[in-house]
Order: sequence, then structure tokens, then C-alpha cells
Amino acid sequence: MTPFETTVRVRYAETDAMGVVHHASYFVWLEYARVEWLKSCGLDYKKLEQSGFFLPVVEANLKYHASSFFDDEVRIKLTPPQDIQRVRFTLTYELFRDNTRIADGKTVHVFLNKDRKLIKPPPFFIEALRK
Amino acid sequence: MTPFETTVRVRYAETDAMGVVHHASYFVWLEYARVEWLKSCGLDYKKLEQSGFFLPVVEANLKYHASSFFDDEVRIKLTPPQDIQRVRFTLTYELFRDNTRIADGKTVHVFLNKDRKLIKPPPFFIEALRK
Amino acid sequence: MTPFETTVRVRYAETDAMGVVHHASYFVWLEYARVEWLKSCGLDYKKLEQSGFFLPVVEANLKYHASSFFDDEVRIKLTPPQDIQRVRFTLTYELFRDNTRIADGKTVHVFLNKDRKLIKPPPFFIEALRK
Amino acid sequence: MTPFETTVRVRYAETDAMGVVHHASYFVWLEYARVEWLKSCGLDYKKLEQSGFFLPVVEANLKYHASSFFDDEVRIKLTPPQDIQRVRFTLTYELFRDNTRIADGKTVHVFLNKDRKLIKPPPFFIEALRK
Repeated sequence: MTPFETTVRVRYAETDAMGVVHHASYFVWLEYARVEWLKSCGLDYKKLEQSGFFLPVVEANLKYHASSFFDDEVRIKLTPPQDIQRVRFTLTYELFRDNTRIADGKTVHVFLNKDRKLIKPPPFFIEALRK
Repeated sequence: MTPFETTVRVRYAETDAMGVVHHASYFVWLEYARVEWLKSCGLDYKKLEQSGFFLPVVEANLKYHASSFFDDEVRIKLTPPQDIQRVRFTLTYELFRDNTRIADGKTVHVFLNKDRKLIKPPPFFIEALRK
Repeated sequence: MTPFETTVRVRYAETDAMGVVHHASYFVWLEYARVEWLKSCGLDYKKLEQSGFFLPVVEANLKYHASSFFDDEVRIKLTPPQDIQRVRFTLTYELFRDNTRIADGKTVHVFLNKDRKLIKPPPFFIEALRK
Repeated sequence: MTPFETTVRVRYAETDAMGVVHHASYFVWLEYARVEWLKSCGLDYKKLEQSGFFLPVVEANLKYHASSFFDDEVRIKLTPPQDIQRVRFTLTYELFRDNTRIADGKTVHVFLNKDRKLIKPPPFFIEALRK
């Protein structure tokens, strides 16, 4: 599957007293990128949840290579997993400010049904991502 | 009803690039103070929600008189309403760092039932607050 | 001065266990709208701060009329003050989901210099907003 | 060095529409635990920064094993590094709700001076942690 890119504009509230973006804010951006990536695959995460499918984060990792600052435009490159059929799947991310790679990391996800029980990715999900 | 006091310790994530606490963080503290105040009245907000009662914020106001900083201990004084029987009720707050009054404001709340419909405050709620 | 409009896309992290956007998240959106409004006037808030001008929030008020939800596109209409020359100035906001007015409020601001002392709005600021 | 423990009470604002604590909120708790751990070693992080020492996060990892919920008391066990003398040091964390281990992870830190340049941990820091 091909990588997906989107951008976020750094908000003042996302900075901290060190004058840079707080490290926890980046995870919120990764989540935003996931939602937009799913949309680009024809999948609406809001409707997924309303249909009883949940994609919680079971692991979240980031390495920070350079700071980012208020009002920066941060580009997020999300790389989908090669194999989406497993119970767990991993998304990797690279974050850029201009051409500087400021961070990279991954999130690991599982599929839960409406009773919050672990299930395999449903076929429509696998199909959508394959396109 | 008597005022209630609690404290919060300022977290680094609550500060912003101006070197002070971000103004939106204060509203999170007011919410924490409400929950602790309800506990002091014998009301567990978590159980309230599980029983199908919700107390959303319909208005939130703050005036900021002085900054607060990372690791400050901020004292929050919550004053309950004189009349809790109406459909809307107002809580007022004063925030202090040592003896400096750094902010004051209010939140206005309504009662919703499990269908998210407006209801009068239930009798057990009124009783608990009166004690 | 003419009103300014911008939009935000609701992030999952901005919601809470009630299934709606947490009331404090709205204040972060107002801030985003202010920054974009200043840009539309040719003012870069980042550069303003680097030049030693700060525009802290000294009052923040919101009334919530309807909920907003994950992935909603929220339209923010910011109305600038009629008179920007005073020490304090007030911005008013209306927030819409489709054609539903979900919230309205205001923020009050002052100008601080690099020593964080209260000053009058600098002439270049007044000029920029008048255009 | 001996492990350190502290607790946080889950705030409503830290939850999300899935009804559980948002995964990014945990990183804010880890930060709180670090600050309290440093205090327990006689180190005031606020004064560290005022003296021109910064301890940014250069890596942040968490694995989530079970959800946590509004008003939970979450216990955080922080394990300091065996060797604090290196340029980078790693803190590991385990999070518990009652006796359930809900998450574990690590943060990696470096020391920066007032010019935000990488330095070795200063001797007073190493001494304080050894005690």
C-alpha cells in the first residue's frame, strides 16, 4: 500500500514552556493522520465506530529528532502495513518540518467489536485498504 | 451551601510557549474541582453517569488576573449555588497561587437524562447538596 | 472591521467520555481562529512574539448551545472589535456545525511588551487591523 | 536506584469518545511522575530549567494492556536508569489500576544547556540520583 501524507498547523496550545511543541501533542497529530488516511481509503472512522468497530491504539512510539514550534506546518507521512490481515497492524510515521525529519514512530492497533472484544479486521476493511 | 476547596499541581503539559499555563488548561482544573466537590457531597460523578445522569457544561467563563506557572500549587475555591432546584445551576470559582487570586469564573450546568434530554435535578442530587 | 471565518476538523483527542467534544477544546479552536484572523490581516503572531509583543487572554467565555462530535467540520466566525485602540480588546466568536450555531463567546486580550508589561496596541497593529 | 511510585486521578478531559482514557493522556502522566520522582531525589525540575538545564524527551513509548477510565486512580511505577552518567538516559514505567497492569513503557531523555546544546548530565544531577 502506498504511503499517505497530510499536514497539521501547530497550535499555540500544543506548545509548552520550553517554547516547543510538547511531546504528547505529536500523538494527537498521528491520530489525525490516521483518520485522514482512512478517509483516503474510503473509510470513515466515525462510521466505523457507529457500526461497532473500534481501532484502539495498543502501542505508541515516537523518536524526536528536532523540535517543532508554534505555527509550523508539520507534514506527516503515514506508511500502511504490508499485511493488514493480522489481528494487530502497525502504522509507521515520519514527521517533517520543511525538509527536516523532526520525528518518526509507529502506532500498533487492534480491531474491537461493539462489545470491545478482539476480532480480526473485517473483510470490507481489508478490501478498502488494498485498493 | 459551604464553599469547597481543592488544589492542583501545574503539569508541564499545561504550560505554553509564553512560559505560563495555557488559558484552556484552567477549565480542566475547574472540572476536576467539580468532581471532587461532588465527592465531598457524597456524589460520585462516574456513578451519576452510569445511572444515566449527565451534567454538561453549558457556559464557561474565566477572568485571568495573574499567570500561573509549571509546578505551582493552585488552590481552587468552588462556591455552590444558593438554589440547586432550577434546571440550570451555576458554580463560581476563585483560583489562588499562594495568596494571589490568579483567576475567577463560573460554569453553568444542566441535567440531562440517559437520552440526553433536559431534566430537573433529581431529588437525590438536591438532597446530597443540601447536607 | 469585517468578520473572519475559518474551520477546524474535530480530532478524536478533543472528545470526551460523553461522546462529544470536551468544552475546553473549544477554547483551543478560538485561539487557532485568532491566529488565522491575524494572518488574514497580514500579522504573523509568531513574529509578533519574536518582536516582543504578546497578546494573552485575560478573559474567555463560551456558551454551548449544541454538542459537536468527532470529525465534525466546525466553522468559526470571529468578529473583530470596533475599536482596537484601547488597552483591552474583545473578539467575539460564533461556532457552527453545518447551519447549527453550536456555541458563541468572546475572548478579551491585552498587549504586553517583552517584559510582560501592559502596553497600548502598537501603531502597526492598529494599522494592520484597519485595512 | 530504587523505583519511585506516585498516583494520578483520571480527569474527565483525559477521556475520549471511546469512553476510556485517550492514549496521549498517559504521556502527560509519565511526565508528572518524572517531576515527582526528581523531587523525591531533591531535584526541582522548575529550578533545573531556571538554572539553564533542560531534560527533553527524545523518545516516548507506551504499550497499552487494558483501558483506564474517568476517576480511576492510576498508580505509576517509575524505574530510574542503572547508569545515569551517559548522555542519554532511559526511564521505564509501569501503570496500574488496582492490581491490573494497564500499560508500560519508557521515555528517553537528554540533557540540554541554556543554549539548548547537548551536554553530559551535570555532577549535581548524578549525585542527587545516586543518593
